[in-house]
Amino acid sequence: MEGYIPGEQPIDQSVVKLNTNENPYPASDAVARALSKITVEDLRRYPAPIANKFRQVAADYHGVEIDNIIPTNGGDEFLRLTIATFVDQHQTLGIAEPGYSLYPVLAQAQGCQVTRVALQQDWNLDVDFASRLNDANANLMFIVNPHAPSGILTPVDRLAEIANEFCGVVVIDEAYVDFIEPGLAYNSVPLINEFDNVLILRTMSKGYSLAGLRFGYGIGPISLLEPMLYKTRDSYNTDTISQLLATAALLAVDDAAITWKNVIADRTKLKRKLAEMGLSCPDSQSNFLLATVPTDNDAANIYQCLKDQNILVRYFDLPHLQDKLRLSIGTPEQNQQLLDALGRILHKNH
Amino acid sequence: MEGYIPGEQPIDQSVVKLNTNENPYPASDAVARALSKITVEDLRRYPAPIANKFRQVAADYHGVEIDNIIPTNGGDEFLRLTIATFVDQHQTLGIAEPGYSLYPVLAQAQGCQVTRVALQQDWNLDVDFASRLNDANANLMFIVNPHAPSGILTPVDRLAEIANEFCGVVVIDEAYVDFIEPGLAYNSVPLINEFDNVLILRTMSKGYSLAGLRFGYGIGPISLLEPMLYKTRDSYNTDTISQLLATAALLAVDDAAITWKNVIADRTKLKRKLAEMGLSCPDSQSNFLLATVPTDNDAANIYQCLKDQNILVRYFDLPHLQDKLRLSIGTPEQNQQLLDALGRILHKNH
Repeated sequence: MEGYIPGEQPIDQSVVKLNTNENPYPASDAVARALSKITVEDLRRYPAPIANKFRQVAADYHGVEIDNIIPTNGGDEFLRLTIATFVDQHQTLGIAEPGYSLYPVLAQAQGCQVTRVALQQDWNLDVDFASRLNDANANLMFIVNPHAPSGILTPVDRLAEIANEFCGVVVIDEAYVDFIEPGLAYNSVPLINEFDNVLILRTMSKGYSLAGLRFGYGIGPISLLEPMLYKTRDSYNTDTISQLLATAALLAVDDAAITWKNVIADRTKLKRKLAEMGLSCPDSQSNFLLATVPTDNDAANIYQCLKDQNILVRYFDLPHLQDKLRLSIGTPEQNQQLLDALGRILHKNH
Repeated sequence: MEGYIPGEQPIDQSVVKLNTNENPYPASDAVARALSKITVEDLRRYPAPIANKFRQVAADYHGVEIDNIIPTNGGDEFLRLTIATFVDQHQTLGIAEPGYSLYPVLAQAQGCQVTRVALQQDWNLDVDFASRLNDANANLMFIVNPHAPSGILTPVDRLAEIANEFCGVVVIDEAYVDFIEPGLAYNSVPLINEFDNVLILRTMSKGYSLAGLRFGYGIGPISLLEPMLYKTRDSYNTDTISQLLATAALLAVDDAAITWKNVIADRTKLKRKLAEMGLSCPDSQSNFLLATVPTDNDAANIYQCLKDQNILVRYFDLPHLQDKLRLSIGTPEQNQQLLDALGRILHKNH
C-alpha cells in the first residue's frame, strides 16, 4: 500500500500558498487572547480526557446534546476512528471517486477493502451510489461535502435519501462546510436525529484558521459515538491548548464568519476571472476552485511554472484530474498574483 | 471489550493530585518563552507533517539519526501505531502483568490477541518472558521500563537478552525514564543499533512537565519506523504548538533535569517515611511509589479516605494490586500532606 501524500508545506513564509486550502486570514482576536493566557502550568497536567467544555460549546452551537459530540486530533483522526469502529479487517469502505485521496489510504492502513463508485460527469454522486455500495456490502461510506476537489455541494435532501437507502454508516465529511453560500441554508445536522447511521465531521482547520492546531470533531447519534469515545479513541486524544483554542474559536464564530464571507466573495471573483482566461471551474461551495486548464495546455506544466514563480497550487496526477489544478482561495492580493502568473504562463504557451 | 479508564482529572486545582504521575514542577522558562512567542498566524497553516525540527533535536539529544525518530500524539499513539503496524488482527501482543493497563485495551481495540506473562514476586520480568511469548507466537511485546506500577528498573543487559531471544518486535516504554537515578547510567538507546527489533518510547508528559501537550516520540531502526512514519501514522499527527514546545523542552533538558533531581530526592524521603508508617514500596526508579498498606488495612478504603481529604492517589482493583496504592511523587509540601493524611487514617483504623 502507498501512504497519503499531503500537499507541500514549505517553510518559506513568502510562498503564495494556495495548495492545501488553509484560510488566508488568521484566527480571531478571541482565539489570540485565549492563546496568550495559556501558561506552562496549564500544560503540566493531563488534558480533560474528552474535552467536555469544548463538547458543550459545540453542542450548543449545533443545537444537539453534549453526547452527540466527539473531539478528535484533526478530522483525520475522526475518519480513522470511524473505520476502526465500523469496518472490520477485510470488510469494506465505500467512497466516490475522485474524492479526498486520504480515504483509501486510511482504509488500507487498517486492512479494509475499498469500493469506489465513479462520480457523474458533473461531479455529483452517482444516482445509484448507495445501492451500489449496498451491493458491495460496504459497512461505511465517506461523502466529502462540499466535494473535494470539485467544491460541488450535495443538498441535504439527497444526503437523506442516501442515508435512508444505505445499510451501513454514512460519514459526511464537512471539512469545507463553512464556505457554503449562507443563502443556501445548508444544515445537515438534523440528519443525526432522523437517521441512526449518520455521522458528520467538522474541523477547525479551515473555517477557523487553525490547521496547525489539529482539532476536529464529529457530530452523531450516541449509539455511533459511544464506541468511538470509549473504546477506539486514544484516552487523551486532544491536548489542553487545542481544546481551549477550539472552544474560543467556536464561541467567536461571528469573527470567523467574516473570513468566510470574504473567501466566498473572492471565490466568485476568481472564478469569473479564470473563466475570462479560459479556465472553467465547477460551482464551488468550498474555499478552493478546481480549474480546468485550456485544452492546449498541460496542467502539470502550469503547476510547475507557478511553483517556479513561488506560487503553490495543487495538481493531482489522477484520472479525471490531469487537466485540472486545485486553487485555494487566498487573500485578494494572492489571488491577483495567481491570476497574473497564470496570464504570463498561458500567454507564453502561445 | 472494556475501554481504558484513565486516572481522574479533577477540574478543582486545589486537589493534591498524586494519581497520574505528572511532574509536580512546571516546564522550564525556555518552554514558557517558546509558548509566549506563538501567535494565531502560526496556527493558520498545517503543521510540519513529521515535525522534522523536533526530530533533529531529538536525534542530536540521543546520538542517533533523524530517521531514527518518530513524533507521536502522546506516547499512547506510538503504542497504538506499533500494534497497527506489527500485529495483524488475530495475531498476538505479549505483555507482563501487572503492567500499564492501557496495553491490553489498545490490542483489543485493534482486534488483536493478548498473551500475559506474570511478573515474578519481586516485580522483575519472568526469566522465560521472551521464550514464553515466542511460544505464544507473539509478534510484539511491550515492556514498560521503569515498570508501572512498581517502579522497578530492568537493566539494559537484560533488555538485550530479551531482544536477542524474542522473535517479534520489542517496545521499551520509557515513559518514566527521566526519573532513574543518574548513577545507574541507564541508556537503552544503543539497543536500536544492536538489534533490528527494538523500539523505544519516550514522552514529554512526565519528565518535561507537558502532559497537557500530548507529545511523545519513538526511537528505533529505520526499518521499523518507516512503515509507521509513512503508512500507519495520521498525516499530521502532531500539531504546531506541541512541536515547538517539545523542541524547546528538549533543548532545555538541563532545566527539566533539576525537576528530576528533586523528584528523585523526594522519592527517597517519601519511601523512608512510608516505611516508618508500615507501608513498604519496591525500589522505584520512577516518579511514583507503589505502597503496600499494612496488613490490617484496606487499600481501597484508604484511597477513599484520602480522596475525602482532597488527596488523589491511584488504587487498582486488580490481582496483586488490591493491597497497594500508587503514589505519584509531588512537591515536598504535597508529599507531607499525603503523609499527614495517611498517618491520620492509619491511626483511626486502630
